[in-house]
Amino acid sequence: MSLRAYNVIKEAEVIIGYKTYIDLIADLTEGKEVISSGMTREVERCLQAIEMAAAGRYVVIVSSGDPGIYGMAGITLELVEKQEMVGKIQVEIVPGITSANAAAASLGAALMHDFAVISLSDLLTPWELIEKRLEAAAMGDFVTILYNPMSKKRTEQIKRAREIFLRFKSPDTPVGIVRNAKRSGEVVTRTDLEHLLEHTIDMFTVVLIGNCQTYHTDNFMITPRGYKV
Amino acid sequence: MSLRAYNVIKEAEVIIGYKTYIDLIADLTEGKEVISSGMTREVERCLQAIEMAAAGRYVVIVSSGDPGIYGMAGITLELVEKQEMVGKIQVEIVPGITSANAAAASLGAALMHDFAVISLSDLLTPWELIEKRLEAAAMGDFVTILYNPMSKKRTEQIKRAREIFLRFKSPDTPVGIVRNAKRSGEVVTRTDLEHLLEHTIDMFTVVLIGNCQTYHTDNFMITPRGYKV
Repeated sequence: MSLRAYNVIKEAEVIIGYKTYIDLIADLTEGKEVISSGMTREVERCLQAIEMAAAGRYVVIVSSGDPGIYGMAGITLELVEKQEMVGKIQVEIVPGITSANAAAASLGAALMHDFAVISLSDLLTPWELIEKRLEAAAMGDFVTILYNPMSKKRTEQIKRAREIFLRFKSPDTPVGIVRNAKRSGEVVTRTDLEHLLEHTIDMFTVVLIGNCQTYHTDNFMITPRGYKV
Repeated sequence: MSLRAYNVIKEAEVIIGYKTYIDLIADLTEGKEVISSGMTREVERCLQAIEMAAAGRYVVIVSSGDPGIYGMAGITLELVEKQEMVGKIQVEIVPGITSANAAAASLGAALMHDFAVISLSDLLTPWELIEKRLEAAAMGDFVTILYNPMSKKRTEQIKRAREIFLRFKSPDTPVGIVRNAKRSGEVVTRTDLEHLLEHTIDMFTVVLIGNCQTYHTDNFMITPRGYKV
């Protein structure tokens, strides 16, 4: 968590968020009004936050990782615009540490070069577009980080993604799998494209696929930047 | 800055880094041994840090943004391996907030969907590879963040990048230019591909090019995630 995020949570009167994330900051919310709700209630949560802010209260909408990356920033600003609250309430997006950054640090130094971040969730995005981006990322030899690689209901997407990458990349391309990156219960797995599917992957996991220069040592996954060492 | 970064700097006995970054944390380094040096001295700085850590001292190598993204994490781990210091010294990579995240927050919510990060610096990377990645990012309709877009010596790369994007994207594709993202002296400019080159761009700047759904409001640059608002 950033110092700025810590400070705004400390100063806030009201904390609104998805229950799982609210629970992660339980030690910071004592004495505050806390409103937590389930998944897929994003629009409702934002509208409530906007309404309370308009009433003069200091409200924080909690997002995991970075709210600006597949998080609550977009929908919040869309609704602030739609409700014609621009200038009437003050809005600040506090950037954070997204899973890609956290997972790369736990793996070693996997993101030292150009990279692409792709969500495999096709709930809000057509699968054809996701597939096109997977191809582009593999062709462009980006280090690629897959968000939402698998859930209980979505189990095929990671298989398709792997197949696409294998059309462009060697089966021994290094892969890192990180569950609960930089949180308690973190699990870091280092493998390769060939063996990717033999490991546990779920909603709390991100998958990093290396570029053609990425390598595993006994301890780290490293993408060299090009320095002579 | 993350809480973890703040805490390790507070605890450290020795702080090593590029002078510009050391100056940014002057209020945290009082009473510590501070070793700052110029650019292009990265290998030297790491070797010195490793040597001091091996002698039992608590050393922090300072990097701006996220050390794991075009930062010092890679070269540090490469040298720890090469010097056969794995297991002899403890190494932790502390993830941070890279310019892409910071700039997106200052622009509004520019990174709500799949994105690619590309450095235009061809000092350590062949230009042909950079060009290939620019094409892949434009073709895949990624929101694209360009690091190191221009320096005093490198002025052509951003022009070439713009031309490549214009082969795939409309001239009115929204663009955000952020200098000193989330630092003092921040400058946020919102424009489009057509007018990109009319604005000041330098080493302290990142350039965000939207995907085909990104739009500017009067106040924000927003890439919708797909929620119905």
